[in-house]
Amino acid sequence: MHYPDHLLKLIDVFKKLPGVGSKSAERFAFHLLDWPEGKLREMGNTIENTKLFLNYCTECNCLIEQGCTFCDNPDRNCSVVCVVASHKDVFSIEQTHEFRGLYHVLGSLLSPLQGLSPAPQAIEKLKERVLKLGVKEIILALDSTLEGDATALFLKKELEEFNVVASRLALGLPMGSSLDFIDGGTLARALAGRHIY
Amino acid sequence: MHYPDHLLKLIDVFKKLPGVGSKSAERFAFHLLDWPEGKLREMGNTIENTKLFLNYCTECNCLIEQGCTFCDNPDRNCSVVCVVASHKDVFSIEQTHEFRGLYHVLGSLLSPLQGLSPAPQAIEKLKERVLKLGVKEIILALDSTLEGDATALFLKKELEEFNVVASRLALGLPMGSSLDFIDGGTLARALAGRHIY
Repeated sequence: MHYPDHLLKLIDVFKKLPGVGSKSAERFAFHLLDWPEGKLREMGNTIENTKLFLNYCTECNCLIEQGCTFCDNPDRNCSVVCVVASHKDVFSIEQTHEFRGLYHVLGSLLSPLQGLSPAPQAIEKLKERVLKLGVKEIILALDSTLEGDATALFLKKELEEFNVVASRLALGLPMGSSLDFIDGGTLARALAGRHIY
Repeated sequence: MHYPDHLLKLIDVFKKLPGVGSKSAERFAFHLLDWPEGKLREMGNTIENTKLFLNYCTECNCLIEQGCTFCDNPDRNCSVVCVVASHKDVFSIEQTHEFRGLYHVLGSLLSPLQGLSPAPQAIEKLKERVLKLGVKEIILALDSTLEGDATALFLKKELEEFNVVASRLALGLPMGSSLDFIDGGTLARALAGRHIY
């Protein structure tokens, strides 16, 4: 016995979400069957209108509603630019309250295996901003993965022609972690980066 | 820094899905930002049209497209009715190819703590079908949880007035399981239900 066509379609759309496999998608789809019409319409509309209500800053490519929270804010330090891969990373860094500079969102990391790379425009725009804003430091706040490392190396080379310092995030133990559960690579980097206590 | 309003709305709708917390909902929402307009419209429409394309059998309450796969099929044995809590359970049981009788979907288990109970109409309809179809056995294929047990007991009492046998699914070790990881309760039931080998 097969699932009805529309149910299969519903399962298929949910499977497109990150980390959602067949089992979860089925669970979501069957759950929706119990929802009233209004709740379904609300969810459908909200998803459909994503592009309509969300925009990106033409300078830093951050997610904005009206005006960019960073570029249009004179209190931000425009001599430091933090380069991140995704829009979500901006919110994560803002939540630390440790950074008062500007951002630059690449949109993607360099990943030849997945056929992904930052848009050439994003990199051109970064160079343009370095000159225009008189940037002194570029913080490459990228994942500590193969793709993050490749992107950082690539950007460092692209920025060599400018009088700007490129830095990366520290590697070490996550807060609250136990040495028992830390991999050797992280531990080695934490040792190398140790500080006087 | 707060998320833009529409992003919050998007996160909120995803949080309504079962097993989806704030973190996953955020992940889904940010993922959607990278989708093209067409893919968003497709997902939105599919969700919105759920009620439009999916119907329920007025007899057994199973999910149908055109005509009920069970009630309208003369090859099914109408002297055995399998009572299940949700529409999904029907597909799970059908996949075993072990059951050729009819189904009856309650829609919900009895769960006073969550304020849930099977609709009175579903129970009245079951009684009506028992008489109309001349049902000999009712298989209570319900969860082996507190709610499943309560519902089974309740249905057993409701069906006492009819000349019908009520049965429940066997309790025991799941296939491929190791005794090391089985709880005492399950093991006790597996022992009590042992069979000659």
